Amino acid sequence: MNGAQALIRTLADAGVTVCFTNPGTSEMHFVAALDTVAEMRAVLGLFEGVVTGAADGYGRMAERPAATLLHLGPGLGNGLANLHNARRARTPMVNIVGDHATHHKQYDAPLESDIDAVAGTVSRWVRRSMSADAVAPDALDAVAAAMGPPGEVATLILPADASWGEVNASVQIRDASRVADRHRAVEGDVDRVIKALASDEPVALLLGGRAVREDGLRAASRIAVAIGAKLLCETFPARLERGAGLPAIERLGYLAEFAQMQLAGVRHLVLVDAKAPVSFFAYPDKPSYLVPDDCEVHEIGDLEALADLVAGDHRPILQAATRPERPTGPLSGEAVADALGALLPEGAVVVDEANTSGLWVSGATAGGPAHDWLTLTGGAIGQGLPLATGAAVACPDRPVISLEADGSAMYTLQALWTQAREGLDVTTVIFNNRSYAILNMELARVGVEAAGPKARSMLDISKPNIDFASLARGMGVEAATVTDAEGFSVALAAALAEPGPHLIDAVLQ
Amino acid sequence: MNGAQALIRTLADAGVTVCFTNPGTSEMHFVAALDTVAEMRAVLGLFEGVVTGAADGYGRMAERPAATLLHLGPGLGNGLANLHNARRARTPMVNIVGDHATHHKQYDAPLESDIDAVAGTVSRWVRRSMSADAVAPDALDAVAAAMGPPGEVATLILPADASWGEVNASVQIRDASRVADRHRAVEGDVDRVIKALASDEPVALLLGGRAVREDGLRAASRIAVAIGAKLLCETFPARLERGAGLPAIERLGYLAEFAQMQLAGVRHLVLVDAKAPVSFFAYPDKPSYLVPDDCEVHEIGDLEALADLVAGDHRPILQAATRPERPTGPLSGEAVADALGALLPEGAVVVDEANTSGLWVSGATAGGPAHDWLTLTGGAIGQGLPLATGAAVACPDRPVISLEADGSAMYTLQALWTQAREGLDVTTVIFNNRSYAILNMELARVGVEAAGPKARSMLDISKPNIDFASLARGMGVEAATVTDAEGFSVALAAALAEPGPHLIDAVLQ
Repeated sequence: MNGAQALIRTLADAGVTVCFTNPGTSEMHFVAALDTVAEMRAVLGLFEGVVTGAADGYGRMAERPAATLLHLGPGLGNGLANLHNARRARTPMVNIVGDHATHHKQYDAPLESDIDAVAGTVSRWVRRSMSADAVAPDALDAVAAAMGPPGEVATLILPADASWGEVNASVQIRDASRVADRHRAVEGDVDRVIKALASDEPVALLLGGRAVREDGLRAASRIAVAIGAKLLCETFPARLERGAGLPAIERLGYLAEFAQMQLAGVRHLVLVDAKAPVSFFAYPDKPSYLVPDDCEVHEIGDLEALADLVAGDHRPILQAATRPERPTGPLSGEAVADALGALLPEGAVVVDEANTSGLWVSGATAGGPAHDWLTLTGGAIGQGLPLATGAAVACPDRPVISLEADGSAMYTLQALWTQAREGLDVTTVIFNNRSYAILNMELARVGVEAAGPKARSMLDISKPNIDFASLARGMGVEAATVTDAEGFSVALAAALAEPGPHLIDAVLQ
Repeated sequence: MNGAQALIRTLADAGVTVCFTNPGTSEMHFVAALDTVAEMRAVLGLFEGVVTGAADGYGRMAERPAATLLHLGPGLGNGLANLHNARRARTPMVNIVGDHATHHKQYDAPLESDIDAVAGTVSRWVRRSMSADAVAPDALDAVAAAMGPPGEVATLILPADASWGEVNASVQIRDASRVADRHRAVEGDVDRVIKALASDEPVALLLGGRAVREDGLRAASRIAVAIGAKLLCETFPARLERGAGLPAIERLGYLAEFAQMQLAGVRHLVLVDAKAPVSFFAYPDKPSYLVPDDCEVHEIGDLEALADLVAGDHRPILQAATRPERPTGPLSGEAVADALGALLPEGAVVVDEANTSGLWVSGATAGGPAHDWLTLTGGAIGQGLPLATGAAVACPDRPVISLEADGSAMYTLQALWTQAREGLDVTTVIFNNRSYAILNMELARVGVEAAGPKARSMLDISKPNIDFASLARGMGVEAATVTDAEGFSVALAAALAEPGPHLIDAVLQ
């Protein structure tokens, strides 16, 4: 057994049974070893940003890590933006980066670079396996680190000779079935929180991480009902459970001005698996830290225990089932949202990278059948299509809906090819407004008053217009272009009714 | 004047008049400032790998830096692979990475990451401008560092408040027209080299960097003629001048076995702006260092002075003008090569990322009209289309031919959109063999004997087949799909005859 075989065996035994790959020469032994472990599924991506984003989507939905397979420093670099998003989502992931053989590094061959430095920016746990014997124990540590809590991107650097070297028969591989329970709650100052809740001062609960899943939401809603607290969710949750029959929760606004309004008057902010809110970007003469000056910040881990203490028999408030009407007329962002709300299937996984144009979707789907909502946790665009790909691999029996801004879609469009190759049930909706619309808004917000023609052209992606249907078909994905609300509903219904990937280019009017 | 305006003014004054951009919110003041400096051309890319690769292509051809504009750590990550290639090419480039405002960093906002650590892997020169006053002097230092010699990727990190802050009127901007001369020759041990050349022992000259331009090649050829030395070029030159009327030079093989044959028997290896050859990857039981055991390695800077000392009146051997016939029959890699050789226009810039399928192109074009040949210096695929884009911006009056493997094309395909937007005269030829063919070869070379179905599927990109013409049209580039040699020649002639970007999907049979 060589190091690569021991690695894949160990990963599979530890429950890591999917590997998203974009290999090169230094990973060929890993590739060859795939066939020695039947349980390991290998999913090829044509670009590393697809690979890492898919592993993020998989980890968010499966609640266990996928592995990635990346080719040296440049491969890691190509995957870095979505590793950044995964780090912010605290997604469990085992990131495997192939490297030159240990004896080869001294020669500074063309692909040599400082992998460790780059990996350290997205992974607290970074290790380099220095021999074939070390690989299996290192892999087990990587899985444990990835599982957390909190979950993380653990990076194992795999030199080619550690991969191709024979493992000494006497090396004992530890029992890989024992991995940390990542659901352990973070402790908090319960007594102080209870005192705050018992006061007459305005309280808000800000939920994030695992607290925005059904159990956490129900407990939080009970507390909110009992004491009249405001219920808020972090701006970009990794995985929010929502829809009819679940407690509704208001997301903190992306715009600092809006978040400040939501938090105005709050005297006690109780953080549950969330951070104290800060502005996404800095703006001239605007605050970065959004907690009101006279607001005390608390932190708590176990919401359910707290609910039992303070909420007694109070029941959570659950979202009623309600859907918008199918829209008519020209295709606006609002019309797309209404059609999505009208047609949202049961148990959908919605990946939201629609940015500005997607403003109305959240409201229009709030009363739809229960679903998961996955968002852009780290702000690095180009996440959506890969995330949807990985979520679909993790949840083959659930429809995945990928809401994508045109600008963001172009970063990692290659994900469509993997969706076609794997026959994944993903419906991609492109909100095609032919611009980096969010930047038009940001240009004004940062204080630029009269943008000149060069500046405006940097935000305009209409010259030439991008034909997303043509791009999708080029990668084997069925596609439709629509320009009116009725056409969009028809295309959406058709895409949802048929298995396999589809793309709808919603050209906003 | 704010920091961003001072930055662009300084760059333009120092001769940096093109900026390849993919901005976000933290770069909005830079974007707004573009209109205050008429000389600065801004070229938008839809993905950062396009931006950095284009700056590399521009720098190689223009011999002065382009600037990039990237959005925080994730933007830098997306551009990292082509920055790696640029580092290996020693291309002058000023890489500008926007960051959060200095006072905002402490809050660990979603897009916060360790930019400095990542930048340090591709740039020896990394600096963070800490105020608006510092920006212009820092920019000037960045340009000087980028120009070298040797050229390099200098990275200036630009916090948003340094960009939006007002520059103190008393800040004197140094004269930006004075930048280092990057053509200064590296010194070498001339006496020892002359002694080696005078011996009867076999000598080879290995040229790289700037030495493979016309002047260096002529001098090297004179020396080779005078003393019977072998003339070799590094495996992946940044910019090789070649064709009829120029001295021909043999490139060192990518395969270590081949390079070893080329170097067998050589007792003195004279390096001119090149490194002692090492294997691209390590392989089990094969050497990494390719210089024969009994070969002495010398290093020299000024080839022309050496030629004057040892070559007297010897003339260089120049390549005769010769072209292959237009090919007929099914479309093979060889047929594509022959058609390229038959039709190569005068003064072309050829960007070569054709990998395995491009094996015959170098031979078929050797006797064509003089041209430049740009290669994959750092081994990080996804370089070709962006490099061609930047070369075309630098050389608007020269035809650019972009030879691209299908697998590699898919990493940074978004470059086609920039080519369409800017109306660049680039003809892209996709060598479409529907596989990562080089990895099939590498799988065998690393010692894998019987690859299983999962391993083989990782190298097979035919399910689904990629329709490159559809992808190109989706981004506004005219495209043709061809499957026979005659059809390819017709399509190539048509693409070369017409300005603007074209793509030919050469589906190899």
